[in-house]
Amino acid sequence: MFKAIVSAETLRDALDSVSVLVDECKIRLEDDGLEIRAVDPANVGMVDLELSASAFESYETDGGVIGVNLARLEEFAGMADSDQLIQLELDEETRKLHIQIEGLEGTLALIDPDSIRQEPDLPDLDLPAEVVIEGRDIARAVKAADMVSDHIALGVDADGELFYVDAEGDTDDVHLELTTDDLIALTPGDARSLFSLDYLKDMNKAIPSDAEVTMELGEEFPVKMHFDIAEGDGSVTYMLAPRIQSD
Amino acid sequence: MFKAIVSAETLRDALDSVSVLVDECKIRLEDDGLEIRAVDPANVGMVDLELSASAFESYETDGGVIGVNLARLEEFAGMADSDQLIQLELDEETRKLHIQIEGLEGTLALIDPDSIRQEPDLPDLDLPAEVVIEGRDIARAVKAADMVSDHIALGVDADGELFYVDAEGDTDDVHLELTTDDLIALTPGDARSLFSLDYLKDMNKAIPSDAEVTMELGEEFPVKMHFDIAEGDGSVTYMLAPRIQSD
Amino acid sequence: MFKAIVSAETLRDALDSVSVLVDECKIRLEDDGLEIRAVDPANVGMVDLELSASAFESYETDGGVIGVNLARLEEFAGMADSDQLIQLELDEETRKLHIQIEGLEGTLALIDPDSIRQEPDLPDLDLPAEVVIEGRDIARAVKAADMVSDHIALGVDADGELFYVDAEGDTDDVHLELTTDDLIALTPGDARSLFSLDYLKDMNKAIPSDAEVTMELGEEFPVKMHFDIAEGDGSVTYMLAPRIQSD
Repeated sequence: MFKAIVSAETLRDALDSVSVLVDECKIRLEDDGLEIRAVDPANVGMVDLELSASAFESYETDGGVIGVNLARLEEFAGMADSDQLIQLELDEETRKLHIQIEGLEGTLALIDPDSIRQEPDLPDLDLPAEVVIEGRDIARAVKAADMVSDHIALGVDADGELFYVDAEGDTDDVHLELTTDDLIALTPGDARSLFSLDYLKDMNKAIPSDAEVTMELGEEFPVKMHFDIAEGDGSVTYMLAPRIQSD
Repeated sequence: MFKAIVSAETLRDALDSVSVLVDECKIRLEDDGLEIRAVDPANVGMVDLELSASAFESYETDGGVIGVNLARLEEFAGMADSDQLIQLELDEETRKLHIQIEGLEGTLALIDPDSIRQEPDLPDLDLPAEVVIEGRDIARAVKAADMVSDHIALGVDADGELFYVDAEGDTDDVHLELTTDDLIALTPGDARSLFSLDYLKDMNKAIPSDAEVTMELGEEFPVKMHFDIAEGDGSVTYMLAPRIQSD
Repeated sequence: MFKAIVSAETLRDALDSVSVLVDECKIRLEDDGLEIRAVDPANVGMVDLELSASAFESYETDGGVIGVNLARLEEFAGMADSDQLIQLELDEETRKLHIQIEGLEGTLALIDPDSIRQEPDLPDLDLPAEVVIEGRDIARAVKAADMVSDHIALGVDADGELFYVDAEGDTDDVHLELTTDDLIALTPGDARSLFSLDYLKDMNKAIPSDAEVTMELGEEFPVKMHFDIAEGDGSVTYMLAPRIQSD
């Protein structure tokens, strides 16, 4: 059993953060809210989404897992204005999801969860450096790197107490530094890793420009990025595997 | 002889309502205004447009029929700001249309009316059900149906006193109900017909979101949609043939 | 040596006026500012740009010529908000341009100036007619001509004291007249020349709609168009060769 009412904006923000990485996903219906974990087909980018029951107008379930085509569900959610409410209800018999938006009723076929790629375990890394940064600064770094390269290096200079971004192209390069004045917070530690820019661009699409993003970094280690959605009643964690640096 | 002055907005609204169905049309120059009737090449969608002489700043004609390429004429009309006036004048000798917009003069070659598809007779149907609905509600129904199917069923539930829209796809479906509270008016009667969504999408493009659209419906009969343009000095009637329902 | 600080808006306006004609150009670093002259590969359209040292927040050079890929440099300049400052500095050793925008540093490889098409001499023509016209009126003329033709005739009727635009297509044509009331100034003289519309469309992209453009015209002669940028601290001159009129 699953029956919930949620604002269109909250549902869309939650789904968008997952759909930048995968087309289909499993949604775990937990007592205290929804949980989605997914990894892209190349095993490079992962997402862990939690949307607490408190993010919903009403939320009832006795548990279970459903499989959804994210683009289809986002299209239904797109029928509502941002502040309209969307009612979701699982039809146990037909294994379809009933969706209601002000007089509009839709039925969305679900996907057999067993046919969906297995959920990843997000490794519990103890990364030495942490920066808290505004979403818009990540966007600026990604845009700058994209001018010159397919890769982006993220690092922390423990001595200089600054976070930096490097991108080196065949002929041109860019370098961006954010000091403790530019950042919300910085926990220094030695960190520098190279990442595929495409993944970071996709993840950036789902990061609001005014979000406070906590970024954990190490030496040739994955980067973890964490931010809240739904006014704190939900959270998204991305993890992105590093590329081997070749000099 | 034909010489008229009309606001760019009025001319564009009138032309747009026809160009969603056909590329070329005949314009009948009547004493009391312009009239355009056209049917798409597949004989599925028809339009009947009347633009009264009172919709013009000035209007003079001694009758006749001219053939126009709608996209070309719309492009000329697009040179004017919405509130600018457009002067149209037929050159009888060259069979060209002279167009003037504040210092800009254009000459548009007309098309031999005999080379244009014959104008349809809009059948005088006595349809049992009628709803008066806002343009934006038609837009919403079309958008919802488009998520799941190429077809859309429009119907009236005489008992429940409601207008409904159904669209059934291979896996997903949508259903939209509008009660007498949501509608401007409803004359109940048994009605349900299936239509090609593409045609309704095209017609919807020309229906202003705040228009009051009178929709007449029957059982496996065409739908008629009627709305005013030019602040009541013009009117558009669409007729769309039903598709055979296959279950 | 070259080191300068300039607002993003000024730099972008200057570069845009050149990049509508060519992909690469030489920038002459003069004591009193930058100068760019370029001609398109077909030798039809030329641009002469001057950006005075007073257009910069600071400007230092001991002269020289650098070659740049305009799209690349514009992309870097696009990283700044309009009112942000961009610092440019030439690294003599690496022959690269260092670019700084609030914490963001970029390095742009320059192009060997000898590999770039030679700079044209803008002929010093004594053209008989001159009109001073708003940029938006040029835009309107170009848009109107583009509906019917690939060519555009610009002329001055010395008797009627008016500037006119003619475009003749296979079936349709347009004619636009601007009198001394519509123009900022007019120096009458016999003038009419035919131009390729594509070039004028490209040049028009770089002309602000509120610019006062001084246009010099003759009988089957090139047209010269001159306007200021950077609040008068810079200027752009376009010259466009006429096409042979065939009747």
